[in-house]
Amino acid sequence: MEDKTIISKVAVFGTGTVGQTIARELVTQGYEVTIGTRNVKDSMSKTEPDNWGNQPVFKLMAEFEELKLETFEDAKVDKQLIVLAVSGSYAMEVLELAGQLPESLVVLDVTNPLDFSKGFPPSLFTDSTFSLAEKIQAKYPNIHIVKSLNTMTNAIMVNPESRTDAGNVFVCGNNADAKERVTLILKSFGWQESAILDLGDLTGARGMEMMMPMWIRLFQVRGNANFNWKIVE
Amino acid sequence: MEDKTIISKVAVFGTGTVGQTIARELVTQGYEVTIGTRNVKDSMSKTEPDNWGNQPVFKLMAEFEELKLETFEDAKVDKQLIVLAVSGSYAMEVLELAGQLPESLVVLDVTNPLDFSKGFPPSLFTDSTFSLAEKIQAKYPNIHIVKSLNTMTNAIMVNPESRTDAGNVFVCGNNADAKERVTLILKSFGWQESAILDLGDLTGARGMEMMMPMWIRLFQVRGNANFNWKIVE
Repeated sequence: MEDKTIISKVAVFGTGTVGQTIARELVTQGYEVTIGTRNVKDSMSKTEPDNWGNQPVFKLMAEFEELKLETFEDAKVDKQLIVLAVSGSYAMEVLELAGQLPESLVVLDVTNPLDFSKGFPPSLFTDSTFSLAEKIQAKYPNIHIVKSLNTMTNAIMVNPESRTDAGNVFVCGNNADAKERVTLILKSFGWQESAILDLGDLTGARGMEMMMPMWIRLFQVRGNANFNWKIVE
Repeated sequence: MEDKTIISKVAVFGTGTVGQTIARELVTQGYEVTIGTRNVKDSMSKTEPDNWGNQPVFKLMAEFEELKLETFEDAKVDKQLIVLAVSGSYAMEVLELAGQLPESLVVLDVTNPLDFSKGFPPSLFTDSTFSLAEKIQAKYPNIHIVKSLNTMTNAIMVNPESRTDAGNVFVCGNNADAKERVTLILKSFGWQESAILDLGDLTGARGMEMMMPMWIRLFQVRGNANFNWKIVE
C-alpha cells in the first residue's frame, strides 16, 4: 500500500450525535479532524438539543480547541477520509455541497436510507436491489465508499470494549485498500479483528441498510438502543 | 385460554427442506401431522433431490407411517395450526388452493418474500412499508398469522439445543393467544424462553423479512448457513 494508507486528516460530515461521537473519538486519538456542516454560523448558534436529542455542536468545539468546524466544501480539502454521518436523506445533497472531492478519497459511509416523511417508524427509500452506498459510489466513481457502523447506535461504534459482548461490525466496499484503512480505524475504536465481518463488495450494503427496520423495531420493543447484532454459530 | 390452546393437529404446507424439517420434528413429538402439497402423486413420484437440494418427500413419508401427505385443501381440514413453509412467492396462491380455512386457525408463517426471477441472490418482492405476513393477514382477517423462524436455516429452527450458541428466534403477530401457542411450539423445539424475542404485532414482520438480504450475504461470504442472529448487550 502507498503512503496514503496512513490516514491523519479526516472530515466528519454531520453535526448530529453520530458525527459528534465519531469526531470526538478521532480527535481524541490525535487525528486532525474537521467537522463539515451546511452553515458554520447556524451550527454554532444552536445552544439547545434538537428534536432528536442531538447536543449542540458548540459544546464539542469548546471541549477540543484543535477541532475545526467548516462548510462541507472547505472541510473536505486535503482530507484522506470523509466520514459521512448525515441523515441518509441528505447524503447526496451534502456530497454535492462539498464540490469536487479529492481523488481516491475514502468515504466511510455510516448513513441509513431512512424516510421520516410519514413519521416514526421511518421506512427505507431504498429496496433490496440497490443501496444508498451504491448510489453514492455510482455518482462518484473516483472515490472509495466503504459502508460500516450503520447497524448500531453511536455509543457502541466507538466504544465496543465497554460492552459485555460487543457483537459484530460489518464492512463492505469495492476497493480493498480503502476497506483496509477503514478496518484499521475500526480497530482503533476498539473492535477486535474477529468481530469485524467483511461482507465483500459494496452490494453488501443492501443487506446492511435493510437491517434498519429490524433494528428500529428492536429499539421500540426494548425501549433503548443499547444492543447490537452478533452472528453466532 | 380456551381448549384450542393445546394444539394436536397440524398441517405443514410445503414439501421442501423447511417443511420436511418442521414436519419431522412435529411428528416425532407426537403431533398429528399432515403435509400439504399441490399434487400428492407428483410429490410422491419425485425420487431425486431437486435443484435446491430438497430431498424427495417420499423418504420422509416412508420413515413415519403416521405422517400424511394431502392436497392443501384436504390437509387444512380440522387443523388448529398450519405451518406455512412454502416459497414466499407461492404463499398467497397456496392459501387460495387450500380454500376455506378453519376459523381462528393459527398460521405459523415461516416464509420469506424472495424473488428469484433475476437469479441469485434473490431480491425481495416487499419493501419496508409492508410484509408478506401482513399481506396474508389482510386477505384472511379471520385467521391468526404469527411470523417466526424465517430468519434462520431449517436445522437451527428445530434443534437450537445442539448449538454452541443458538442465538435468538423472533416472533410477532396480532393475536396474543396465537402467539402464545406458537411460542409453546418454539419451546418444544428446544428454544429457551430468554432466546425468544417478541416483536409485538405483525408489523414486526417487516423487519424480520428484511433481514433476508443480510442473511443471504452472510451465507455467500461464509459459504454455509450454519449461523444465526443474536441480540447482545
